[in-house]
Amino acid sequence: NKPRRSGFIQLRKVIRLLPGELSQTVARAMSSSGGATPPYTTLAISRPTESITHVELHRPEKRNAMNSAFWSEMVTCFNELSEDPECRAVVVSGAGKLFTAGIDLMDMMNNVLQPEGDDTARISWGLKKKIRKFQETFSVIEKCPKPVVVAIHGACVGAGVDMITACDIRLCTQDAWFQVKEVDIGLAADVGTLQRLPKVIGSQSLVNELALTARKMYADEAKSSGLVSRVFADKEAMMAGALEIAGEIAGRSPVAVQGTKINLIYARNHSVADGLDYIATWNMSMLQTEDLMKSAQAALEKKSPKTKTYSKL
Amino acid sequence: NKPRRSGFIQLRKVIRLLPGELSQTVARAMSSSGGATPPYTTLAISRPTESITHVELHRPEKRNAMNSAFWSEMVTCFNELSEDPECRAVVVSGAGKLFTAGIDLMDMMNNVLQPEGDDTARISWGLKKKIRKFQETFSVIEKCPKPVVVAIHGACVGAGVDMITACDIRLCTQDAWFQVKEVDIGLAADVGTLQRLPKVIGSQSLVNELALTARKMYADEAKSSGLVSRVFADKEAMMAGALEIAGEIAGRSPVAVQGTKINLIYARNHSVADGLDYIATWNMSMLQTEDLMKSAQAALEKKSPKTKTYSKL
Amino acid sequence: NKPRRSGFIQLRKVIRLLPGELSQTVARAMSSSGGATPPYTTLAISRPTESITHVELHRPEKRNAMNSAFWSEMVTCFNELSEDPECRAVVVSGAGKLFTAGIDLMDMMNNVLQPEGDDTARISWGLKKKIRKFQETFSVIEKCPKPVVVAIHGACVGAGVDMITACDIRLCTQDAWFQVKEVDIGLAADVGTLQRLPKVIGSQSLVNELALTARKMYADEAKSSGLVSRVFADKEAMMAGALEIAGEIAGRSPVAVQGTKINLIYARNHSVADGLDYIATWNMSMLQTEDLMKSAQAALEKKSPKTKTYSKL
Amino acid sequence: NKPRRSGFIQLRKVIRLLPGELSQTVARAMSSSGGATPPYTTLAISRPTESITHVELHRPEKRNAMNSAFWSEMVTCFNELSEDPECRAVVVSGAGKLFTAGIDLMDMMNNVLQPEGDDTARISWGLKKKIRKFQETFSVIEKCPKPVVVAIHGACVGAGVDMITACDIRLCTQDAWFQVKEVDIGLAADVGTLQRLPKVIGSQSLVNELALTARKMYADEAKSSGLVSRVFADKEAMMAGALEIAGEIAGRSPVAVQGTKINLIYARNHSVADGLDYIATWNMSMLQTEDLMKSAQAALEKKSPKTKTYSKL
Amino acid sequence: NKPRRSGFIQLRKVIRLLPGELSQTVARAMSSSGGATPPYTTLAISRPTESITHVELHRPEKRNAMNSAFWSEMVTCFNELSEDPECRAVVVSGAGKLFTAGIDLMDMMNNVLQPEGDDTARISWGLKKKIRKFQETFSVIEKCPKPVVVAIHGACVGAGVDMITACDIRLCTQDAWFQVKEVDIGLAADVGTLQRLPKVIGSQSLVNELALTARKMYADEAKSSGLVSRVFADKEAMMAGALEIAGEIAGRSPVAVQGTKINLIYARNHSVADGLDYIATWNMSMLQTEDLMKSAQAALEKKSPKTKTYSKL
Amino acid sequence: NKPRRSGFIQLRKVIRLLPGELSQTVARAMSSSGGATPPYTTLAISRPTESITHVELHRPEKRNAMNSAFWSEMVTCFNELSEDPECRAVVVSGAGKLFTAGIDLMDMMNNVLQPEGDDTARISWGLKKKIRKFQETFSVIEKCPKPVVVAIHGACVGAGVDMITACDIRLCTQDAWFQVKEVDIGLAADVGTLQRLPKVIGSQSLVNELALTARKMYADEAKSSGLVSRVFADKEAMMAGALEIAGEIAGRSPVAVQGTKINLIYARNHSVADGLDYIATWNMSMLQTEDLMKSAQAALEKKSPKTKTYSKL
Repeated sequence: NKPRRSGFIQLRKVIRLLPGELSQTVARAMSSSGGATPPYTTLAISRPTESITHVELHRPEKRNAMNSAFWSEMVTCFNELSEDPECRAVVVSGAGKLFTAGIDLMDMMNNVLQPEGDDTARISWGLKKKIRKFQETFSVIEKCPKPVVVAIHGACVGAGVDMITACDIRLCTQDAWFQVKEVDIGLAADVGTLQRLPKVIGSQSLVNELALTARKMYADEAKSSGLVSRVFADKEAMMAGALEIAGEIAGRSPVAVQGTKINLIYARNHSVADGLDYIATWNMSMLQTEDLMKSAQAALEKKSPKTKTYSKL
Repeated sequence: NKPRRSGFIQLRKVIRLLPGELSQTVARAMSSSGGATPPYTTLAISRPTESITHVELHRPEKRNAMNSAFWSEMVTCFNELSEDPECRAVVVSGAGKLFTAGIDLMDMMNNVLQPEGDDTARISWGLKKKIRKFQETFSVIEKCPKPVVVAIHGACVGAGVDMITACDIRLCTQDAWFQVKEVDIGLAADVGTLQRLPKVIGSQSLVNELALTARKMYADEAKSSGLVSRVFADKEAMMAGALEIAGEIAGRSPVAVQGTKINLIYARNHSVADGLDYIATWNMSMLQTEDLMKSAQAALEKKSPKTKTYSKL
Repeated sequence: NKPRRSGFIQLRKVIRLLPGELSQTVARAMSSSGGATPPYTTLAISRPTESITHVELHRPEKRNAMNSAFWSEMVTCFNELSEDPECRAVVVSGAGKLFTAGIDLMDMMNNVLQPEGDDTARISWGLKKKIRKFQETFSVIEKCPKPVVVAIHGACVGAGVDMITACDIRLCTQDAWFQVKEVDIGLAADVGTLQRLPKVIGSQSLVNELALTARKMYADEAKSSGLVSRVFADKEAMMAGALEIAGEIAGRSPVAVQGTKINLIYARNHSVADGLDYIATWNMSMLQTEDLMKSAQAALEKKSPKTKTYSKL
Repeated sequence: NKPRRSGFIQLRKVIRLLPGELSQTVARAMSSSGGATPPYTTLAISRPTESITHVELHRPEKRNAMNSAFWSEMVTCFNELSEDPECRAVVVSGAGKLFTAGIDLMDMMNNVLQPEGDDTARISWGLKKKIRKFQETFSVIEKCPKPVVVAIHGACVGAGVDMITACDIRLCTQDAWFQVKEVDIGLAADVGTLQRLPKVIGSQSLVNELALTARKMYADEAKSSGLVSRVFADKEAMMAGALEIAGEIAGRSPVAVQGTKINLIYARNHSVADGLDYIATWNMSMLQTEDLMKSAQAALEKKSPKTKTYSKL
Repeated sequence: NKPRRSGFIQLRKVIRLLPGELSQTVARAMSSSGGATPPYTTLAISRPTESITHVELHRPEKRNAMNSAFWSEMVTCFNELSEDPECRAVVVSGAGKLFTAGIDLMDMMNNVLQPEGDDTARISWGLKKKIRKFQETFSVIEKCPKPVVVAIHGACVGAGVDMITACDIRLCTQDAWFQVKEVDIGLAADVGTLQRLPKVIGSQSLVNELALTARKMYADEAKSSGLVSRVFADKEAMMAGALEIAGEIAGRSPVAVQGTKINLIYARNHSVADGLDYIATWNMSMLQTEDLMKSAQAALEKKSPKTKTYSKL
Repeated sequence: NKPRRSGFIQLRKVIRLLPGELSQTVARAMSSSGGATPPYTTLAISRPTESITHVELHRPEKRNAMNSAFWSEMVTCFNELSEDPECRAVVVSGAGKLFTAGIDLMDMMNNVLQPEGDDTARISWGLKKKIRKFQETFSVIEKCPKPVVVAIHGACVGAGVDMITACDIRLCTQDAWFQVKEVDIGLAADVGTLQRLPKVIGSQSLVNELALTARKMYADEAKSSGLVSRVFADKEAMMAGALEIAGEIAGRSPVAVQGTKINLIYARNHSVADGLDYIATWNMSMLQTEDLMKSAQAALEKKSPKTKTYSKL
């Protein structure tokens, strides 16, 4: 009569009950032997199930450091996912020993630190364009209406934190650590951490401490502070958990799921009154979906909504 | 010399110290033998003390599911409480085995799913009006200047979560669980959860997970995530706790208390600079209350502010 | 192979490793024998290190209660710190047995409660001017671009909470407690708590409970709720921790550090989209700092950024 | 080959061409022999055509001064119009010699100037509730999705200006004058003028001058400043013009017309980016109206959209 | 000693003074014999001078109606202009007898009115994507930092008004008329007019009248209402005027000019306080341009800033 | 029976009727023989009447160009006026041949163009501080609750336009011209014009044209565009007009007048809903003024409110 088990134990049970299918799926999700998926050079894209896309940061020999190719490949990748009606949920993870070491410093020094322009104003103008382009790399994650689950192991440093704060659900392994590194390389973080982290974590004191001192935060504090919503023993368990969450999402009505993501992000940036008006305007058409009837019938029949089939969106 | 005891133990002590009065009050607050209070059919209204109103969801045979009557009775009830100078704090709870199963699905299918209108635009127009009306059912809780303490036991599902996020202070029992259920019935939650939950809970990752997967959250996680501020062993203890908190509030200056509620809600929707300007404009008159002198005297006399009597508001 | 030690143990280790320097610094930071620093009568200002300023509330015989002098001295003090290029981080603490008892009630009654003006409107006009002036006392902390670490021991009551919510990083001792006291003296808190606390703590239910009931919150709950980011065993350990954090900040690029503070506060008050545009505009010049090259070199050399020397700002 | 005639001449032509129908309609619209329409005591309601409602301020013997009855009758009236599917446009005018003298001063002195409450804070609390209620009297005009054309003759003073700034289209006679009178009776206008006039008129200098000096503005300046969009020679011509404009509106698709009003008001209060997102969300359902096909066919057939019949909304 | 001549007369004088160069330029700007410029099928692009780009709507046989090709070609065109350092100002005009008849109704009926999707929600989803794409067609004009002067002759109908409100400076001929046509085809305008027109014109009454009745507005009213800032006798004079204005802009510092455009648009969407902070952050780098010294020298030498040469941006 | 005379003729009549007093007052207001008023070096301060302060830009030999002294003297001056209960309205004008030539270019080149700092980031940091300080010079005009009438003759160039857009009521002579000059000296205007002008003038096209081309605008266009609300034949008439308007303001209830200014500025920066809430909160105390009863009595007695005496504020 213990009313609650940890998510981790629940997942283990799921894995035991469905050893064949899910463990194979996890195995596929974790295999990165094939290298990056052309035309990408820094990302490996796969489909663990028909409706889940797995995006793997894939420069393991460079600790998945983000180079020039990465910044544009992410945009291409997520713009395609946004348009792909088969894809209903996305899982992001990193290949190799850790999630990501953040920006590729050598690449950046050849890039950002070699600005062009005839005077300071023109150099500044060019820098702003570059920063806006880098920001877009992670904003596409938010603009993609399919929910994005990010699974972090090992280390998540610098621009990695900018990236994961733009994802919807954050999971990590027990050995993961996080570092808002930018102040250590002499700049205020400008691709999302300073803007999103205060709206992601409940403790402003902690946000400030992390951003001002660049200290590491380990998995337990990431969980208690709310940066991640679950911690797993190891990467295999985390990938199983990520796929299970993605499966829960992908099996439900895409009208409901994607509308939920869009309205959650809207609510973050607006007053409650504006948010209520927006969703009422949104739902005046979205409630006219057949999914509502299908789902309601499943509920009345005490079945999971995942037992129903929903049209593509 | 342990500087801190849990709220629960403090309350137990209070109950021991004042066994007669408070336990009778709790008994009254928990008794729902009389059914709904006319003219209401879904709410039982009582006055555990002169200045505390208890609003009980009271369709226990239907697990307090929210039907058409409920949506309008809530508006009537809270509009009256807003105008009632005797009422200084409100406690909301549910009769029977659980807090609420959320929207009454059969009622909704006969209602929302049978829209009228000559074309899609006109059906949509009608749906928006219905959604706005449903939103108002919970917004009246926020618009009521009297603080609202909600006490949740058993289950709080779907529209129940929309409702409690509009209350000011959330308490629950150890056996309570919460479920943002809307995605399971094929829609994005549109009566408050998506708008208010991100401003109520500190972990955006958890908010997203709850809203996108409809998984249950149990009392411990509700406490650690900040959805509730206290967990109690059982309903009796919780009702005692709710009444004690409501009593703390009702005994203080209503000018101070209701001004505090209004300004907290204002601050949530505005920048710090706007919030500071607003309260300065607010308090330029509100500081001219006799309550300030009475309360300050109590403080100088090292007495509780509750030992003073404050005029009605 | 335990991947994480508590901040407290790390600090103890630091203290062991650098017994001479840091313990002397801590000793200096805790000594308040000299009284307030002229021209101040309520503040003692010192420089534990060249780039850290220590601002100590210093009316220990009055439990650091905030009187008329205090309200204006804080403004003078922080305006000077804002302009002082030597100062790169600020530590705030309280002399004597506790952090602060909040507003000096006798002083306030002679001041705010004796308003002047020929009619209610004119009295109100004068009160608004006073409130705006009092608000400025704490807003200067936010306007100061140098990060402010506040170290709280004993008690932090009323206006003390208004004050610490305007600081960047909050630490406390195990015996600290916090009380949003204003409702007890008959007013809605109007110098910052109601505006900033909801953006500082992740649980709106807890914020409401604290502000509406004036109950005490102890160190453990302050930590779990996110009000403070670290708890220390005693004041000595806390001061060592505060100085260590301030030292981490002061040793890094001031361009990076102060830009980070300014953008974090900006982000709190704006949408993510506005925040991203603002920092891109900010960094188009700030990335053209030599600190970036120095820091990046340190990173490539696997050294701490604190091993480099950065120009004044 | 003069490409443009004044609206006035066009209207005269219309009146000549359709002497029977329109002149009778105008006659009906201007007749106020029957007094106020029960249950109203200050308003006379009529239907010049099936889809146009005429709301006439009707206390001519008191120069249509706004008394206690008026403040609540307006709310009842416009809430009913909002729900009435027959009504597609509203014309507001004043009976007797002038549009309105504004607030009924004797009524106000017995009402607002006799506040109740045990201290200043409680009196203030009561005053705020009254002001909010008065504000609602004019905000219902904006909340009503049917466009409201206001036709002003003679004088429009004080609260009259608050009222007309909440209407959608403003017309006046050559002998009309306008006066933001509130500063003359010792208060800052608090039922809409100060909030809406700066968003209604293009010259902030003029807005300030009018509001700070209470000087009269005559019809020509009202036209050149943009307060009114047309000036007519006399009341008869104006009423014909108002009815013609209302007829243009009422004959078009109500989905298009009412969506236009709602989005224009939304745009006034939001950024362009927010406004664009809102209308895209709005129109994703509203474009699915049969009115679009009907109207487009009329356009392709080079006919007026008014030749088609649109379903009620 | 008449201190002011009309812009038109000034321009005539300019044309007389520089008959060779400017009249040839105007001739080039008005010639559209070559048809659309590949790869475009609806736009003719030319360079009347090195730094001015002329974008001509070029489907004269279809009255420059906006078809599917147009919606995407505009985006391509303005994105290229944004990146082209030679281009410092843009002139937009229409080929043939009129500026534009607005959306191509047949094209729209085959496009928007034939939506795809399995249920109303999915059709709505697709419609929103289309609307957002159409909105982008005109938003690119605003996002392009080069000022855009639009020159309107003949008629500007429906989507044409949406388009010109996104341009920076509006000019028209004496025979031009404007029509917010959307309500006539059964929809609320959703590609910019309702959002931008209220911020472009000073009379909200006029904006509402135009949008709700779809009446035509002629050149004189367009000028007096502020929709256009100048009216010219005929197209030749207008093109000369447009080129002269574009030349004034293109000859000045691009750092100053493009910073001015960006900050004017920012100011429209933000409070004055936010706007002041933004430009201070903007100019802290932009003032470090050599253009400032060059321009200041020109000013001290009493020469035109156009006598100096500024680097590309 | 001509219902309206121009403001100019009315003023002439006033001057005829009260030749003694007003013409002497005008004479005093126009005399600038005494030079700047110590301790000011760029401003001459006088009191034409007890409750009106005249602030004259007074460097006529330098065409009232704004030098370093000016930037700080304005702040001192207006901060004092804000606190001075005798002062109820302010008139600003320029001594000598013209209003102001704008920033003192030589002074600026020695000041802004000689920035200090070890790298671009530090120079930028210093520049931002300077810009913010310059912005404050004009923002104090807005923050001063006493209405400010500005009277412009001759020329108003560059920073002069930034200045007058921060004033409340703008008047000019027939020979006045205005020039948004900044783009001519290579920068985007950063002390207020770009932020305030779009909210001051009704034609965005004109605002853009003025700011992007730096062309002169003469008095007639300034009047028709709404930049000024009145044009006078010469400086003497304008000063009489300015003093008459200031007198109208100064003679009314300061509670009403200053509340009106504050709420007009608030409304400009907020939504209508926020503005209505703010003034309701404002007026809940301000209606409790004796001025209301005095003014209402004057109104009932058909007397001017200026016949009553109001307490200082």
